[in-house]
Parts: sequence; C-alpha cells; structure tokens
Amino acid sequence: MIKEKNFSEWYLETIIKADLIDYGPVKGTIIFKPYVYRIWEKLQSLVDNEIKKLGVQNVYFPIFIPESLLRKEKEHFEGFTPEVAVVTYAGGEELQEKLVVRPTSETIMYLYFAKWIKSYRDLPFLINQWTNVIRWEKRPFPFLRNTEFLWQEGHTAHRDHKESIDFVLKVLKMYEEIYQNVLGIYGFAGKKSESEKFAGALATYTYEILLPDGKALQGCTSHDLGQNFSKVFNIRFQDQDKKLKYVWQTSWGITTRALGAVIALHGDDHGLVLPPKVSPYQAVIVPIYGRANKKKINNFAQEIQKEIPESYFDVSSKTPGYKFNFWELKGVPLRIEIGEKERLTKKLTIYRRDNQQRFSLTKEELKNNLDNIFKEIEDNLLEKSKRFTLNNTFSVSSYDEFKKILATKRGFLKAFWCENKKCEAKIKEETKATTRCLPIQDSRNKIQETRSKKYKCIYCGRKAKNEWLFAQSY
Amino acid sequence: MIKEKNFSEWYLETIIKADLIDYGPVKGTIIFKPYVYRIWEKLQSLVDNEIKKLGVQNVYFPIFIPESLLRKEKEHFEGFTPEVAVVTYAGGEELQEKLVVRPTSETIMYLYFAKWIKSYRDLPFLINQWTNVIRWEKRPFPFLRNTEFLWQEGHTAHRDHKESIDFVLKVLKMYEEIYQNVLGIYGFAGKKSESEKFAGALATYTYEILLPDGKALQGCTSHDLGQNFSKVFNIRFQDQDKKLKYVWQTSWGITTRALGAVIALHGDDHGLVLPPKVSPYQAVIVPIYGRANKKKINNFAQEIQKEIPESYFDVSSKTPGYKFNFWELKGVPLRIEIGEKERLTKKLTIYRRDNQQRFSLTKEELKNNLDNIFKEIEDNLLEKSKRFTLNNTFSVSSYDEFKKILATKRGFLKAFWCENKKCEAKIKEETKATTRCLPIQDSRNKIQETRSKKYKCIYCGRKAKNEWLFAQSY
Repeated sequence: MIKEKNFSEWYLETIIKADLIDYGPVKGTIIFKPYVYRIWEKLQSLVDNEIKKLGVQNVYFPIFIPESLLRKEKEHFEGFTPEVAVVTYAGGEELQEKLVVRPTSETIMYLYFAKWIKSYRDLPFLINQWTNVIRWEKRPFPFLRNTEFLWQEGHTAHRDHKESIDFVLKVLKMYEEIYQNVLGIYGFAGKKSESEKFAGALATYTYEILLPDGKALQGCTSHDLGQNFSKVFNIRFQDQDKKLKYVWQTSWGITTRALGAVIALHGDDHGLVLPPKVSPYQAVIVPIYGRANKKKINNFAQEIQKEIPESYFDVSSKTPGYKFNFWELKGVPLRIEIGEKERLTKKLTIYRRDNQQRFSLTKEELKNNLDNIFKEIEDNLLEKSKRFTLNNTFSVSSYDEFKKILATKRGFLKAFWCENKKCEAKIKEETKATTRCLPIQDSRNKIQETRSKKYKCIYCGRKAKNEWLFAQSY
Repeated sequence: MIKEKNFSEWYLETIIKADLIDYGPVKGTIIFKPYVYRIWEKLQSLVDNEIKKLGVQNVYFPIFIPESLLRKEKEHFEGFTPEVAVVTYAGGEELQEKLVVRPTSETIMYLYFAKWIKSYRDLPFLINQWTNVIRWEKRPFPFLRNTEFLWQEGHTAHRDHKESIDFVLKVLKMYEEIYQNVLGIYGFAGKKSESEKFAGALATYTYEILLPDGKALQGCTSHDLGQNFSKVFNIRFQDQDKKLKYVWQTSWGITTRALGAVIALHGDDHGLVLPPKVSPYQAVIVPIYGRANKKKINNFAQEIQKEIPESYFDVSSKTPGYKFNFWELKGVPLRIEIGEKERLTKKLTIYRRDNQQRFSLTKEELKNNLDNIFKEIEDNLLEKSKRFTLNNTFSVSSYDEFKKILATKRGFLKAFWCENKKCEAKIKEETKATTRCLPIQDSRNKIQETRSKKYKCIYCGRKAKNEWLFAQSY
C-alpha cells in the first residue's frame, strides 16, 4: 500500500484493510462497518451540536417524493432527474404516481413551508434533517461518490435576502471550522460558478479540498436559494407592513463524503490517521508483558486507562508488534506502551500516530497534557494539509501552463476567467478541469473583488475580473 | 378534544394541535415536526446507550435490497412481499433487477454475516442500525401504522441456541425497562404464537401495550431466529472442535411507534403528558409580570432556570393564561410560575402536568428535589398505566364472555387456548381478536408453565396448557 505511487489503489486497499466498509449488493452502495460508522457518529454529533447552536431544529420528512412535486422547479428537476431512483410498484400494485426516492428534500419540504409559514413572526424558519439520500452514480468511488450516502440537509426561510445570505455564509463558516478545527483539513471556501451551482439555487458556496492525487473534492455546500423555490411553491409571509412577501431561502449539507476526505488526506502507508475528536478511540494502551509481571502491568495500565476517557486497553492474545500494526492501521491518535521499564520508572512510552514520534511522560504529565497533545495533533494535521494544498495550488497566467500542470501533477489552478460559460465549457472539454470556486478572501464573508482591470481570461483573452480556482474533481 | 368519548378522534386532533406532525404527500407517511422529533432523539439516545451497553456496535447497510436476496428465505419473503415498495427505474434506465426498499434488513445483512463470520472467535457478532424503513400500509394511523417509520434493528449471531435465546430475552428486558422506567408504560412481555411471530423466526417475543380504546399495540419485538437464516445464507463458523457449525441468530427492534404509545396513553383532554426523560423540556418557567416588576421577575426566573438543566423560560408576549394552556398542550412535566408573590416570598409555584397538582417550593428545595420529583412523575405515569391495563385485563373462561367483552369495552383477554392454529384463526375471524402473547411470568425470563391439566381451550374445549393474552390490535 504505497500512497505516493497510486493513490486510488492505496485508498481502496486501505478502507478494506482497516475494515471500514464492504461493497453493497447494489452497485455504488457501501456498508458502513462499525469502526467507520463510529467515526460518522462522532462527526455527526459535533456537527449537530453546531447546527443546534444556530437555532436550527431537527425534523424528519418522508423519503418518497411524488414525481410531480420534484417537477415543480424546472432547473431543480432537470438537474436531478438523471440521478434519481423511482418506485413504481408498492403494496402489491402498480402506483398511480411514481415516487422518487429522496435525492435531496427541497421540493417535499417547501410544499410544507408554504403551509406552515404565515407571518414575519414565523421567520427565520430553521430546520434540518439527518437522513440517507439516493443519487444514482455511474462511476462510484467509496465515500466520495456513492449511490446512497448519509448526510444532513438544512433548510431555512428568511425575511429578506441580506438575512438569508448571512445565514448561507454562517453555515459555510461552520463547515469550514469543522473541516479545519475538527478534521484538520485545509481547503478553499468560495462561491460556485453559474454552471456549477446547485440546480435551482441563486448561488452555491462550497469548501473545496485537494486530495492527494491532485483532484478536488467538494466538501460541503451552502446554497443561497433566493426566491426561486418560494415563488414556485408560493411560500409567502405577511410582513409587518401587512404586505404578502415571498421568503428568501437557504439549503446546505455535509455528507459521509467527509469521511473519505479524512481517510484520503491524513492516511499513510501504514493505514488511517484519525483526528482525535472523531477517532473511535483517542488512545490505545498496549501492554508488553515480561516474565510473570502480567498482573502488575495490567494494574498499572488500568490506572492509566482511567485518565483517558476514550481509550482502549488491548488485552487480546496477539503480540505487541501485531497490536502496534493493527492500531496504526486503525489510525488511533496515541499509543501508550506499558512494559516492565514503564512500570518501574513510571514513565509511559507514548507514540503519536500523526508524526510517528515517540516520547515519555509520567501518568500525571500525560493527564495534564492530554488536551494539549490532541490540540497539537490537530494543528499538525491541518498544517500538513495546508502545506500540501498550497504547494499544489498554482497561479497560472497562460492556458498552456494550465494544461501542462493538469497533464503532469494536477492540483488547484488559480486562473483569471471571464465568467463566460462558453470558456468554462471549453476548458472542461479540453482539460477535464472545472471551476471549483471563486475563493472567499481572508476578510471573512467577502468575495474577492476586482484586483485590477488589466487581467485577462486565460481561455479567450477577454477582460476578467476574478481569479478562479480550477481543478479536475471527484 | 375529549379522550374518553372518542379516543381516535382525540388522538388525531391532539397530534395536530400539539404540532407534532403533518401528513406527507404519500399516503401513510408523516412529517416528524421539531417537537416530536426531539422526543424521538431523546428516546433514541437512551435506547442507543442501552444497546451499546450490551456490546452492540452501530453500522449502516444500504436501503436497497435486490429482490432475489429478499426471496432467499421463503417465509420471510412471503411475509413481507405484500408490504414492499419496489424501485424498477434508476439513473435514467429500467433496472435489470428490481430493488426492494428496506422493510427490514435480515436478508441484506446476513449475506455479509456469511462473509464476515469465520470462527468461534468472531462470535457473538452484535450489530445494530438506526434507519428509516418502508412497509406499505393499507390503513395507516400516525405513529402506530405508517408506510415509512424510523427504528433501530439489532442483529446478532451466536455460537449456540442457549446464548442466542439469552440475548433475545436480554433485549426484551431492555425494551421492557425502557417502556416502564423511561416512558412510564405498563405492558405484558411475552412470546408470540406461531401464526403471529415474525416471518422467518423460530420465536418472537414482544411487549404488548393496551391503548385507551382497549386495543393492543405491539411495542417492540425480539426474535429468536434460530438457524433459519444461517442455513439459507450459509453463515457458518469453525468451532473450537474444528467443526463447521451454523450460527444462531437474533433480530430485534423498537420504532417511532413508541411515540404513539406515549401520546395515546398519557395524554389527556388538555394535550400531551410527557415523561420527563424524553420531554424536549423538563420544565417551563412562566413569568407573571405585574406593574413595573418585569426586570426583577426576569432576574429571579433566570436564577431558577440555571438550576434546571433542560428548562425553557417563556418570555414571549403572550398572556400567562395562554402560556399555561400552550405548555400543557405540549406536555411539559413541570410548570414554574413566577409572579410578584413568588419573587417576594422566594417560594415558587409549581404545577405538575401529570397529576395536575400545584405546590410551593423554594429554589433550594426545588433544586434538591428535582430528581425526586421527576421520579415521582415517572412512577405515577407507570402506576396509572398499570392500573388502566390491569383494570382492562379480563380472565375469561367462556367464549361467550370473550365475545361479550370485545363487543362492549374491549381490553386484554386472558384465555386458555389449545395452541391449534385453526382455533386461533376462527377466533380472529369471529371477533377480530388475535393472540397477543403468552405472557412471561414474574420470575423473569421464564415462560409460564402448565398450571394444571384441567384447563380447556376457550374455543374448541380441548385440553389447553397455557393462558394466552388476546386482544384486538393496531
């Protein structure tokens, strides 16, 4: 399993070796085995907490959407129709109306928004659900592109556009912080182009991540739906001025794809490298028994285990060497080795999975520094990911250079583009690279403005206002 | 809304008035609105905790089951086939093989059990998943019978039958404790008859609850699958004696139906009455402002709020009377009224939703007694539910008496039955009552044994070993 040599081979081998998944009987589906499902549970709980902090409440809407409902918003329907699975037969008979298996829930939810929202007092209206969704995949790849995946989808309605845009960006920021502070994954937050935005949205915001093979992954999305859906579904509220107005909407989601990003970015030739906050165990304790000291070592190890809330004490009959390899494969952030030396000196031997460093600490030192150590691990993962991303982000000024990079090493390409769909389509056709986003600059929540009038589109040479991020993608 | 007068009308009105659901666009589906979804989240978290204590790990299996897979176990297929929804079209084309939308996951899971389980060292193999499931309902009724519902399904494999039966009963006991200690719902734990057991099981265990209209609700199930599925799916392990043996299996589940039981049993003409552990708020604080004391009352109320972790301070502009009604409708266990008198005397006026009693406590007394008060509420709910159930459980010794009770008040009927399917079918045909279970007696985990040789089947008069529980049911 050599990651550098062949990333996708390494990835597919690693997720099987680490016992994360099995392939489902239906093409493009996977089985989330206990270890990876536990990672998802932990991520889910952290994201859910942040979502609740935004004042959003969880709900559950049915998975079956009558086809006529999906048809209501034309662009949305056209965008999703090639990917949907359809129930035509149920309860022993042919159905009168076909039912689409939820690819996303805008249409079914907004039918009810129209019924539930009456007054400005009902706004903002903020809901979310955690569900499975189905999008038929022609070229599936585990976690990154699956026919069925798990996600949360948030849907909100607001009084005016300023408030809804603020919410879209607040959610984007929440996702960015989850990726950076919890998962240690660097990326570019930005706005999608007109061709790449969500079907039915006014604008789509994204967090774009560079995978080790130089291809981009859309890490999440946050959509400014404007009044597109509210006009189609007739979602109106009576404002304080007594006038009936259409609400302004947002929708946003993060999926089990994030697990793929964690595996792909942090993993190495020995297996997974998990960020502490989502690792099923934060530390594993491996006893190294000598002659007749088993009981003493176990007693000492149990004392240590008490100090680390989410630790695992591996008392299986395997050899220490086997256990070292096994837990490295599983990506547990810390390994604590306890042998006769450690017992006598009261100094534990600790191994950090992320940077492969070994060091010694007493029980008290470990206890007092645990949070710091985990923070250091998180910082190191993010720093490495940032370095990798920036080292593989190229500002290019000619289309030749653009093509050359894609033909060799790939990566993120920063290039000026005139924002004409024809150039974008040609670039895609000729290089397989798409616009990933117009990155948001350091001053948060502000899209990069014109830097100068003299910049030209990399494809057609006409005036270009903004430097966009391009890449081949998953 | 008079519960006594017309239970089902009261129920349907209450769930709408309390804003728990809306009806989905597809018949038999419902939308779980925030308040009821929060109740589900709390119940889910408590059940998940208990499941994890049993050593069971969560997973996620795909929702689509190839039809050929569902066909593998004949009884199972025949049992589920009238209820399934089928995807015939996906990704823009007719599918070569039809896909059944998960009605339960035995078949898809056990395909993998055969692959994953090799040795006695892999046993017991214990997994669970929280998902949506689809079972087409001809006569839907919210929460109690829905086309789509939410549940957990546990699936385990064991080395021998004793171990798997032990597990089946351990799970049954877990459910019973959740119902009794968390939800305050009395019921009968017992074993299903041959005709009423799960399609494909050797035996099914259940917790049967009596609803206010005298009809029974199956509160959960725990199945002893024996080796039925392991033989069909070829799930074998090499035992210590080197021999290949088929595993012994169990499956078990509890669903969003439990929410219906809570609403139906505890609710009254004023609305919901929620058990504290699953109520979205454990207490609501209602300020009663006088002249110019708003700030002082708010300050005092906030002090109180700090002492009750899951409390809600209702500062909306509605009148106190409106708030009293609103939170009674919502079923919040405690209401704390804070007006000028309470502020000056430092004695809070507290109202218990379950028994409609008002009493006074100081902040310190409330704080110190909070757990006791909630325990008292739980005990009271369970006691009332037990009283209701036992008052409506009738030991009958003649078929005339049996029919008469069903024709008038309904309820649980205890009657001797010869265990011949024909008598059971005739009773069902003539009275709409089915066998609910053979109750487990007080000595836990033991099915009631023959009490005497002289008992006779209520229908045919032949010898009957056991007294069964009958009822009309949901």
